[in-house]
Amino acid sequence: MNVGIIGATGYGGLELIRFLHTHPEIEKLDLFTSSDEGNKFSNKYTHLMNIYDEPLLKIEPDRLSEYDVIFTSTPSGVSSQLLPSLIDKGPKLIDLSGDFRLKDPLQYEQWYKKTPAPIEAIQKSVYGLTEWNEAEIQKADIVANPGCYPTAVLLSLLPLLKENLIDVKHLIIDAKSGISGAGNKPSQMTHFSETNENTAIYKLHQHQHIPEIEQAINLFANQTSPITFTTHLVPMTRGILATSYAPVNEGVTEKHLIDALQVTYANHPFVRIIKEANKFETNQVYGSNYCDIHVKVDPRTNRATVVSVIDNLVKGAAGQAIQNMNVQFNLDQTTGLKHVPLFI
Amino acid sequence: MNVGIIGATGYGGLELIRFLHTHPEIEKLDLFTSSDEGNKFSNKYTHLMNIYDEPLLKIEPDRLSEYDVIFTSTPSGVSSQLLPSLIDKGPKLIDLSGDFRLKDPLQYEQWYKKTPAPIEAIQKSVYGLTEWNEAEIQKADIVANPGCYPTAVLLSLLPLLKENLIDVKHLIIDAKSGISGAGNKPSQMTHFSETNENTAIYKLHQHQHIPEIEQAINLFANQTSPITFTTHLVPMTRGILATSYAPVNEGVTEKHLIDALQVTYANHPFVRIIKEANKFETNQVYGSNYCDIHVKVDPRTNRATVVSVIDNLVKGAAGQAIQNMNVQFNLDQTTGLKHVPLFI
Amino acid sequence: MNVGIIGATGYGGLELIRFLHTHPEIEKLDLFTSSDEGNKFSNKYTHLMNIYDEPLLKIEPDRLSEYDVIFTSTPSGVSSQLLPSLIDKGPKLIDLSGDFRLKDPLQYEQWYKKTPAPIEAIQKSVYGLTEWNEAEIQKADIVANPGCYPTAVLLSLLPLLKENLIDVKHLIIDAKSGISGAGNKPSQMTHFSETNENTAIYKLHQHQHIPEIEQAINLFANQTSPITFTTHLVPMTRGILATSYAPVNEGVTEKHLIDALQVTYANHPFVRIIKEANKFETNQVYGSNYCDIHVKVDPRTNRATVVSVIDNLVKGAAGQAIQNMNVQFNLDQTTGLKHVPLFI
Amino acid sequence: MNVGIIGATGYGGLELIRFLHTHPEIEKLDLFTSSDEGNKFSNKYTHLMNIYDEPLLKIEPDRLSEYDVIFTSTPSGVSSQLLPSLIDKGPKLIDLSGDFRLKDPLQYEQWYKKTPAPIEAIQKSVYGLTEWNEAEIQKADIVANPGCYPTAVLLSLLPLLKENLIDVKHLIIDAKSGISGAGNKPSQMTHFSETNENTAIYKLHQHQHIPEIEQAINLFANQTSPITFTTHLVPMTRGILATSYAPVNEGVTEKHLIDALQVTYANHPFVRIIKEANKFETNQVYGSNYCDIHVKVDPRTNRATVVSVIDNLVKGAAGQAIQNMNVQFNLDQTTGLKHVPLFI
Repeated sequence: MNVGIIGATGYGGLELIRFLHTHPEIEKLDLFTSSDEGNKFSNKYTHLMNIYDEPLLKIEPDRLSEYDVIFTSTPSGVSSQLLPSLIDKGPKLIDLSGDFRLKDPLQYEQWYKKTPAPIEAIQKSVYGLTEWNEAEIQKADIVANPGCYPTAVLLSLLPLLKENLIDVKHLIIDAKSGISGAGNKPSQMTHFSETNENTAIYKLHQHQHIPEIEQAINLFANQTSPITFTTHLVPMTRGILATSYAPVNEGVTEKHLIDALQVTYANHPFVRIIKEANKFETNQVYGSNYCDIHVKVDPRTNRATVVSVIDNLVKGAAGQAIQNMNVQFNLDQTTGLKHVPLFI
Repeated sequence: MNVGIIGATGYGGLELIRFLHTHPEIEKLDLFTSSDEGNKFSNKYTHLMNIYDEPLLKIEPDRLSEYDVIFTSTPSGVSSQLLPSLIDKGPKLIDLSGDFRLKDPLQYEQWYKKTPAPIEAIQKSVYGLTEWNEAEIQKADIVANPGCYPTAVLLSLLPLLKENLIDVKHLIIDAKSGISGAGNKPSQMTHFSETNENTAIYKLHQHQHIPEIEQAINLFANQTSPITFTTHLVPMTRGILATSYAPVNEGVTEKHLIDALQVTYANHPFVRIIKEANKFETNQVYGSNYCDIHVKVDPRTNRATVVSVIDNLVKGAAGQAIQNMNVQFNLDQTTGLKHVPLFI
Repeated sequence: MNVGIIGATGYGGLELIRFLHTHPEIEKLDLFTSSDEGNKFSNKYTHLMNIYDEPLLKIEPDRLSEYDVIFTSTPSGVSSQLLPSLIDKGPKLIDLSGDFRLKDPLQYEQWYKKTPAPIEAIQKSVYGLTEWNEAEIQKADIVANPGCYPTAVLLSLLPLLKENLIDVKHLIIDAKSGISGAGNKPSQMTHFSETNENTAIYKLHQHQHIPEIEQAINLFANQTSPITFTTHLVPMTRGILATSYAPVNEGVTEKHLIDALQVTYANHPFVRIIKEANKFETNQVYGSNYCDIHVKVDPRTNRATVVSVIDNLVKGAAGQAIQNMNVQFNLDQTTGLKHVPLFI
Repeated sequence: MNVGIIGATGYGGLELIRFLHTHPEIEKLDLFTSSDEGNKFSNKYTHLMNIYDEPLLKIEPDRLSEYDVIFTSTPSGVSSQLLPSLIDKGPKLIDLSGDFRLKDPLQYEQWYKKTPAPIEAIQKSVYGLTEWNEAEIQKADIVANPGCYPTAVLLSLLPLLKENLIDVKHLIIDAKSGISGAGNKPSQMTHFSETNENTAIYKLHQHQHIPEIEQAINLFANQTSPITFTTHLVPMTRGILATSYAPVNEGVTEKHLIDALQVTYANHPFVRIIKEANKFETNQVYGSNYCDIHVKVDPRTNRATVVSVIDNLVKGAAGQAIQNMNVQFNLDQTTGLKHVPLFI
């Protein structure tokens, strides 16, 4: 397979390269840029020296159509303009930005403050939450790769919501993320001296992943209710831990919740249900494509606490994108993604 | 004033020394130990060289009664046995451990798995949440200094619960803490290589601060309901950020919540209500005795998100203990505690 | 005393505010800005809410002359243009930038790539390494507050070089710094995700503190030799640890080195000589104005290893600046600077 | 190939599992323990769930002889007693502890304070610095896998010392390491709250890697001189950066140094010579088996600064051990080790 990446200099792009470099089915990997054409990529990123020393290529639509897959890992508002012209031109399109996730263009405008993609292109795109949408992903023109937070949240909650085991009307989701989720562009918010030894809540009630989560809950679990979803920055580079709270419905026990999770993911190698956990933590999945899930019902309150962890750059971005590529090309989902978590 | 500290080698003790060393009303500061008698304290803690070079003293009840104040900053199960004999012997007693916080000995046994203090001693102790219990603290034999998590949680929620502005029956509290809350004793859970670049949830539904928070909500806001309270470890040394979620009651607006907070703390210099906040974070109060609070109602869900931050070792331990001492001796509450947050 | 700060929004400025706020001799503290005039300072820096809520003032030379002291904590190339006009106008001038440190304007141009200050102003400035230049500082028009690295390096080496105990011709200095030394302006080099979990060497053989150190060794120890000095970034906010290596001269023992240090600093409260140290570390001085020094001779090589630690923002910047102010106003040097190190 | 690991619960062991799990030539991987027999390994290390769920096996010499390779990743003093009996019994033995590195038992006793291995076993062991000892490693009974610090130091210095380009008599090596080098056993020295936001020098002139480095310089570069080597802990989990300083010999230029490095490692895929570097840093090699080297001569002092970085747990431990296994079994050295550095 020949693969092209647009937006390789961002963290999503770097992680795509990390996994694709050792993916056994990739023959050619090319990187495209709008600004740095001709520069040797390892000049910018020393860690890739002797690994990826090729020059960056110019983005030219004709050229792009020669690839089997094009990944776009660009800031919001770029792939919405770029990808529509590539539909039906040959390559499978997998977009890691948020541009094709929301089906309602007005909602996109409201939360992203950008011009939405053309409606026809949005309609041809499919939400790429692999474990929940395999059949659709397989035949999609554009895969809208899910956001990092939504991936952690949805994988843990959808089985419980779909079976009506917990009450969506009182659903509270408190998510904590490492700083790499903010990307590679320096800002005061990601400045080491102000981020280190610090935990922050940000974009309170305003995060663009709120409508994405609600839309997916509706799509996959057929439940409709506005949710409370908050995002925190913790002083680490990688990892998301999402803690969700909801009352369990009448007659539901902890065992029902665990069973629903285990049954749902029985044949999904990247989702692990952890039954016992004194501590449950992001380094369980560090650098890997796993999503770990733990659930416990508090008998004092009859509420469930559902916890999930992912590496935001892997299962929350590049890893899931490659998993989707594997699905589209009928490869085993774990192809090229068998990396063991680093833990330390 | 002559002050003694029992348990000075722990982090609570070190912070007491940090503040008391420059407290203008302290004449004598002595440190007591059960094991290291005679050793120069700055031999163990180099950062105190030339600052506190005195030898550690042996714990002898007769001797202790000569002090104006005794702080105990000991592991659970120590001061419960030690302090009862010092009641009415002279010194004011301020306990930073959890031994005198819970009024119900059975509850203490259940959550702490230790023998409770004698019931008479418990009855003579007063919960030391300064801003809410000043009059009682002033005349107390024993001040039970609040836990770090309860301090952050209660200061932000009590004004709203007391005025019946939010619904305690759906109250969810998600707290994040730096690692120093686990104290100075090494363990796998505080081992750098397994804690760094990691966020964890721990003691799910089992944390001993749950009954402490519920008891105080009952005492100060007259509300009774089991709450959901979870604790997370984030890879930083100091700081707690508590995010609480509850529906607002009928007819209540964001302004009502802000007003309640502002009115409650109008004359309390250590509690700051932050109205606008793109980001709200623990480093706002780093190293200081402040508690900052921010609240926002989401019109989509009609739920309030209430956020508070403290330095767990200061307002959550030593700082509040000294604030309580100031109250007991009719000093301005800020005496010796005017330290500006470090921020960076 | 009335004090003005120009460049308060940088980290040096924030630390000046932190210490001056509780300095007992300060009556008025005003902050000046070239861009943010009229804005409430605590709107930008929430940690200062209720502590410093005054608006920023416009920089006007006439107005500045009414203060007893003006601190400039500006980027290179600003105070060189601003301060000359304030000489003899009233206020003592203490400059935390590098603009007045190098006596040779050509050297300044070469290492800083900026236009140097007028030669007359440079001649009226005095190098503010407090422990070594008290008499000169007392009467100086402009105090050129030393760089963070030079402070850590010079305090530990000058006593040994002055007494000719170690060989300057083979002197190697390997310095490690926290990221706050790079200031508050975001860049790729200070971007959390690329700085965290990372140690880097930077500006190899090019750091502008090299000529500053050499000039001071010449001035205070009368030794002339180009030195090797390298700088490393470690993933922490505050702190410098400088490790220096040099052969001991004929007949010199470890005891001679320790004695020289102890005698030199016998009456200097902020320099502590640590004789025994299994571990010697930056958190010994965190947040405080101390400089700790440790020295050991390796009998296998007959070389001395000299280690020193400071908080780069305190003894390496704002703390030493205030110490210099105290000297100029005949106050005890520790006035307003008695803060105990945080250690944790 | 069938592989056994003794000491799998340590960090060296965990990293062996991480790489061996996806090593294409490994058929069977068994873990041995002296204490936890029968326990499922992923019960202790959740990150290995669904990856390595086998029970730990009891250490039985007869059983061990059935493997093709036995890795020992045990504390000092264990493999010295265990491995001698396995020589000539079948498996290749690769020891990640320090027990077989020093050829002189007296030196081992002096620096390790433990009983040395039997002299016959020491004589049958070979120092496993892959790039410098391939032929010997191929036929060795026991490979003494190098220490983490020596690996970083020797790879960068040996080409320069062997060609007599720099002066070993004035060689200074200043090394900085992440905390994982101290292993997985909790202690005050690795306690998060005392390690975070802190840089320390430790074991000054006493580190057991000093004789290891000197022995290898003698063996591979035929130079004899006691060196100065110091070790620092920086607040990160992984990574070593070693900065070495030495005068260049008469007539030697920077180009000579770079050439020597490039020629030496021309056919060694894991050593990369970085010619230009504004910043040179540990995250270039994070999680990978690379060693990156950078050298620069300061024309002011005519001294070379040589910098190298490795991941201490990979090239400094498990990665190099597997590289040695590959050599012994005539596999391409990169087999199973093609992991791209994480960088972020």
